[in-house]
Amino acid sequence: MSRVGVVGIGHTVFGRRSDATVQELAFEAYRGALADGDLDPELIEATVIGSVPEYHKQRSLAGVIQEYLNLNPKPTWLTEVACASGSAAIRTAWMSIKAGVHDVVAVIGCQKMTELETAEILALMGRVGDVQWESGFGTTFPGYYAMFAQRHMHEFGTTAEQLAQVAVKNHHYGARNPKALFRKEITVEKALASDSVANPLTVYDCCANADGAACVILASEDAARKLGGDRVVWLEGNGCASASMSVLRRPDLTGVPSAREAAAQAYRMAGVSASDIKVAEVHDCFTIAEIMAYEDLGFCEKGAGGSFISDRQCYIGGSTPVNVDGGLKAKGHPVGATGVSMACEMVRQLRQEAGERQVPQADIGLTHNVGGIGQYCFVNIFMKD
Amino acid sequence: MSRVGVVGIGHTVFGRRSDATVQELAFEAYRGALADGDLDPELIEATVIGSVPEYHKQRSLAGVIQEYLNLNPKPTWLTEVACASGSAAIRTAWMSIKAGVHDVVAVIGCQKMTELETAEILALMGRVGDVQWESGFGTTFPGYYAMFAQRHMHEFGTTAEQLAQVAVKNHHYGARNPKALFRKEITVEKALASDSVANPLTVYDCCANADGAACVILASEDAARKLGGDRVVWLEGNGCASASMSVLRRPDLTGVPSAREAAAQAYRMAGVSASDIKVAEVHDCFTIAEIMAYEDLGFCEKGAGGSFISDRQCYIGGSTPVNVDGGLKAKGHPVGATGVSMACEMVRQLRQEAGERQVPQADIGLTHNVGGIGQYCFVNIFMKD
Repeated sequence: MSRVGVVGIGHTVFGRRSDATVQELAFEAYRGALADGDLDPELIEATVIGSVPEYHKQRSLAGVIQEYLNLNPKPTWLTEVACASGSAAIRTAWMSIKAGVHDVVAVIGCQKMTELETAEILALMGRVGDVQWESGFGTTFPGYYAMFAQRHMHEFGTTAEQLAQVAVKNHHYGARNPKALFRKEITVEKALASDSVANPLTVYDCCANADGAACVILASEDAARKLGGDRVVWLEGNGCASASMSVLRRPDLTGVPSAREAAAQAYRMAGVSASDIKVAEVHDCFTIAEIMAYEDLGFCEKGAGGSFISDRQCYIGGSTPVNVDGGLKAKGHPVGATGVSMACEMVRQLRQEAGERQVPQADIGLTHNVGGIGQYCFVNIFMKD
Repeated sequence: MSRVGVVGIGHTVFGRRSDATVQELAFEAYRGALADGDLDPELIEATVIGSVPEYHKQRSLAGVIQEYLNLNPKPTWLTEVACASGSAAIRTAWMSIKAGVHDVVAVIGCQKMTELETAEILALMGRVGDVQWESGFGTTFPGYYAMFAQRHMHEFGTTAEQLAQVAVKNHHYGARNPKALFRKEITVEKALASDSVANPLTVYDCCANADGAACVILASEDAARKLGGDRVVWLEGNGCASASMSVLRRPDLTGVPSAREAAAQAYRMAGVSASDIKVAEVHDCFTIAEIMAYEDLGFCEKGAGGSFISDRQCYIGGSTPVNVDGGLKAKGHPVGATGVSMACEMVRQLRQEAGERQVPQADIGLTHNVGGIGQYCFVNIFMKD
């Protein structure tokens, strides 16, 4: 089977983008990826769109975007798995190349979320859970993650200060990312003093909805070598797993079973282990989610996530730098775009093009993208020859 | 590359299914497919869901269905391309097997549409077009297809009687399909006398929204031979193409360019031509759509679609029997389920298990599934060894 490489990346600024429609955001990311890879649009054989349709007025995005990008009559389709929709798009594009169906495919994650009020978005997000038995009883996402945080604190002594430290780190790096929504540093004191959202989570424990798009252009091994030369970053491991939404069916509330399973698949496929990962992008929709990810991905022992951030092991210079682009927390979370945005940052890091956010000698990187509260998890491992 | 075969099919009754949630409909189809193929659920390595999320309260269906089917932690994802969502699910599952990522994958198309009022559905469907420049000006689906019909009549002399004859044929076969929504014959007179929807289309020129689900289980060549033996039907050609939603950008209004392109891809891949097709399922969302499909797929010359139905060439016994399960028109159109339902009928026909609807000696069959007004088209060719 052919290896699959990334030959171009593009990324819009994340934030309130009332200047652009969703297809314009997609085009901005796509154009950036063509420019980054110095690619002729004639090469693009298909597109895959990662997005959650219901957050904007425009529906069935793939067709509208394909027309706007002037790519008719080439194939296109859209994947939706809540906040991991962008990673599902990467997975199906990767499979299309490994299957020999396509040689060069553009993956575009995009989302326009600021057309709706936050309360509307929360209600729609809640409906990702079972509407008959769960979301009708008020299970919003902050509520779920607050339960996880409470349990993690109870079992392992994780503290509110440690949660706040995750936010401080991600704002620290977000301040250095020109594409990020929040580009200012914060302090632990400020985070702890902010309004409560769902105890123990405060405003600074929660990521922010945003508009934005990101694009990666994937190619077969032969095409990638020809188009990208030494700059190619290879997608060597792709894991995908599911878990119940219902917390009653979870083995525990202090981690995400689909993340452990997807990571195991990806590590096996790439032939590496957690200790080989030089830089990671993880799904920090809430600060507790990042702490659970350290553990689920094997960057530290189960229960040691709190001290992993206190000891600054996830900063540049630590054992596994995490979310050095600001993460969902500071970069913003346009849900369909997020998985693709993670891949863009990983390619930038592995090409040593991340500027003041560069992790030295990064040659193996991991992305971890969760949908729902772990109903879906996708883990990708990228490597540079 | 491995061939991909169908080893199980399942199908709910289409109609107003207020007795079941969408995940229950999905389970009903999935259970049917396992029983049909005498398959152990342990064999299922992944599921792909084809659905349009916004037509029901339950969102992000893949996760909810995976949990309900007791398939956690296996991978799942959802594909959305409007009314072709089921065929996109088949395409990504087919690619996953050809890529060697999975051996056995269940594809489930499902939709619950009767929770919403018809007017709401029409408004949401309109938003499949460009909401900035088109749908805001009233371009609903009946309106688009009425324009196509007017132009086809103007250029080729197609008549309202011929449109009605398509409806009569599909009701004739729908009356013989125990899974169909409408199981009664109609006459040309009755169709012509029914209320106008968008001139020249009347009520009987339009398919009906419905609830329902369908499932096909795909397997790699080795797995399929082992599991299905002589009953396996092979998916030998898979074409996928896009076209503009904007009618202003279409080369003509009497056909669907993405259908011609997808058909060309599928014929090439399968090594067959239109004259080899013994039975076809085409996307008759409106009667004019079926007439255009005859021409786009090459079953008759351009402009000869009207006489193709008048001459009964699309009945059993004609040159290419079309929609002998009733089609969208009489079977009903639960949008995400439709593409998978077409595949089920094709497998049934090629196994010679279609009873009184059986096309004699059917060994090569085609499905044609359109999304939007042809923003997407997927053509599959099935063959029996």
